Amino acid sequence: MKVYLDNAATTALDDKVLEAMLPYMKGHYGNPSSVHSHGREVRTAIERSRKKVAALLNASPGEIFFTSGGTEADNTALVGAIETYGIKNALTSPMEHHAVLHTLQECEKRGHIKLDYAQVNGKGQIDMGHLAEWIQTHPNSLVSIMHANNEIGNINDINTIGQLCKEHDVFFHSDTIQTMGHYVHDLKSLPIDAIVAGGHKFHGPKGSGFLYLNKKNKIRPFIYGGAQERSMRGGTENVYGIVGIAKALELAYEEMEEHQLHVQRLKKRFIDQLKEGIPGVQFNGLSEDLDKSLYTVLNVSLPPSEENSGMLLFNLDLHGISASGGSACSSGATVGSHVLQALNAPSDRDAVRFSFSRFNTHEEIDYTVEKLKELYGVTA
Amino acid sequence: MKVYLDNAATTALDDKVLEAMLPYMKGHYGNPSSVHSHGREVRTAIERSRKKVAALLNASPGEIFFTSGGTEADNTALVGAIETYGIKNALTSPMEHHAVLHTLQECEKRGHIKLDYAQVNGKGQIDMGHLAEWIQTHPNSLVSIMHANNEIGNINDINTIGQLCKEHDVFFHSDTIQTMGHYVHDLKSLPIDAIVAGGHKFHGPKGSGFLYLNKKNKIRPFIYGGAQERSMRGGTENVYGIVGIAKALELAYEEMEEHQLHVQRLKKRFIDQLKEGIPGVQFNGLSEDLDKSLYTVLNVSLPPSEENSGMLLFNLDLHGISASGGSACSSGATVGSHVLQALNAPSDRDAVRFSFSRFNTHEEIDYTVEKLKELYGVTA
Repeated sequence: MKVYLDNAATTALDDKVLEAMLPYMKGHYGNPSSVHSHGREVRTAIERSRKKVAALLNASPGEIFFTSGGTEADNTALVGAIETYGIKNALTSPMEHHAVLHTLQECEKRGHIKLDYAQVNGKGQIDMGHLAEWIQTHPNSLVSIMHANNEIGNINDINTIGQLCKEHDVFFHSDTIQTMGHYVHDLKSLPIDAIVAGGHKFHGPKGSGFLYLNKKNKIRPFIYGGAQERSMRGGTENVYGIVGIAKALELAYEEMEEHQLHVQRLKKRFIDQLKEGIPGVQFNGLSEDLDKSLYTVLNVSLPPSEENSGMLLFNLDLHGISASGGSACSSGATVGSHVLQALNAPSDRDAVRFSFSRFNTHEEIDYTVEKLKELYGVTA
Repeated sequence: MKVYLDNAATTALDDKVLEAMLPYMKGHYGNPSSVHSHGREVRTAIERSRKKVAALLNASPGEIFFTSGGTEADNTALVGAIETYGIKNALTSPMEHHAVLHTLQECEKRGHIKLDYAQVNGKGQIDMGHLAEWIQTHPNSLVSIMHANNEIGNINDINTIGQLCKEHDVFFHSDTIQTMGHYVHDLKSLPIDAIVAGGHKFHGPKGSGFLYLNKKNKIRPFIYGGAQERSMRGGTENVYGIVGIAKALELAYEEMEEHQLHVQRLKKRFIDQLKEGIPGVQFNGLSEDLDKSLYTVLNVSLPPSEENSGMLLFNLDLHGISASGGSACSSGATVGSHVLQALNAPSDRDAVRFSFSRFNTHEEIDYTVEKLKELYGVTA
């Protein structure tokens, strides 16, 4: 049996998304910047995709900029805001994805900003009092706090953080890569400057992404070149990627409740069976709490075990189960997760992130629990 | 009849390339950074693609970095070299693509470099004496001269420029987007630091590209995030794009001579018929010279005509013929080409860039000439 439980790293491309992309990989191959008929037909597809994304997020088409992925979108927003506005202070959390953390640390290394960090407790919860104080004492700065953590699934209250930022003219960016397509984002009511998406996290294509940038902002481009994306991103558009990410978001919104229900049931079943089956099992961050964590992510902390220490993912892989130890960029490594480090997770316990999608089944969960029980010497 | 003569803007995706990409859009969807079986199978595909590209270019796999396209690759090389090496002076030509021109001009605006320009004559030829003198008087600087111009097709002698740069420790970057996949690049013998490719210019996928960076260079990343592309480019890899660009380059090399012969015949036929059929026709740059210009590009300068002035591309489009007035990023506009401006092209003549591919036919050329003759009131 092959079981894919690494959906926070990447998801399978939905057949319906591929179907939407294929016409632009076959007949409609023009350059969208060309004004002739070959160009116009693909230009129309891009602008239709932009409108679709904007409508789903309750934003304006002019606020959506297509990129090559979530990481480029994060870089564009952060570097662009800091350089355009001459921002001198920034706050992020030690649990951010490297797309944010490394980008801001590079800005600090170059002397553009002083970078501070939110305080987090052992469950990965941000100290909101400290955060509020920082914002109050650092007007005209930048805050970047992810919507949900990719490793432990904790959901942060970006609405409250956004309100605080708004009151003190702080540019607020949130890495929404793990929630886009899984939760509703209403950008009319959410006070925020920038959020991002990577298509392949919600059954869209790899190499696709977008940046939402609130229309009150006008920041400098990240990639210089042609006048594409209203001069915000040079380079011939990845037409199929754009068509694909819009279609994937549309499908995600159409059946979001149904998918959420299905996946949450899987997660609950997994938690219940693990607690019953493996004595001493724990869960990192808030991932056990169905209301406070992504329904797609469960970070399991397994009891100390000589046989499995550092080998657990390898052992699971031998049984056909794909899961990961940390972020997508270091999937498979049970050591070195900067997120688990920030939580002071005990080093003698193996941590595995299992992440689910609407394509997973109860049978796959049961199989995985069985194999974990075998690995941990628990027999029925 | 629909005739696509805008192949310098973008080319149709080859069916064989799509076929190579599809398995990675269907069954093989893992994240290449994951160490489990789902990840390993796509990691293998990426590294096999890298080896393939490197072998074709006579480079090492470690010198190939996949990007989202040629523009990102240009930005990565130029910004990376200037910032990493603290380069203070750069030379480019006024006829470069905006991916180079705007990027360098932005670096100058920020005070990182002083930017000078090569001298070009009315045919778009670079004054090599001036260029050599500049290099001699600006050691440890940067030179960026494109291999071939996308609008007028002029091929520059990057081998000689590379030699000069090497002798004076000048970082030499060449925008090879129009020659990649159309000419052989032998990076063992070519003295150069960086060249680039965009897959969609040689029947590969949009949203794919690569940077070749000579192994003696270690420059900073452009997009920060994960450890992908040996920490040179954060972000989950566009697996299908990478597989596609490698396949497209492989196909291009396999049948390069045959394609070149076919396309060059079309170009010659076009030139001959235009000269015979339209009195006063001229050709911009060196594009009439089959040895000194891209076989894929012909920039036609048409005699003054009240009926067609500023409307020529529109009129051609009405007849189903797709061509362009300038670069891909401003295709369709007959005004405002910075390249034609640099040549001091007469403003009362309309310029059209016709660009060919191996998929074009003699019939399409004949049809286009007929329509041009009709538009210019020349009847048989």
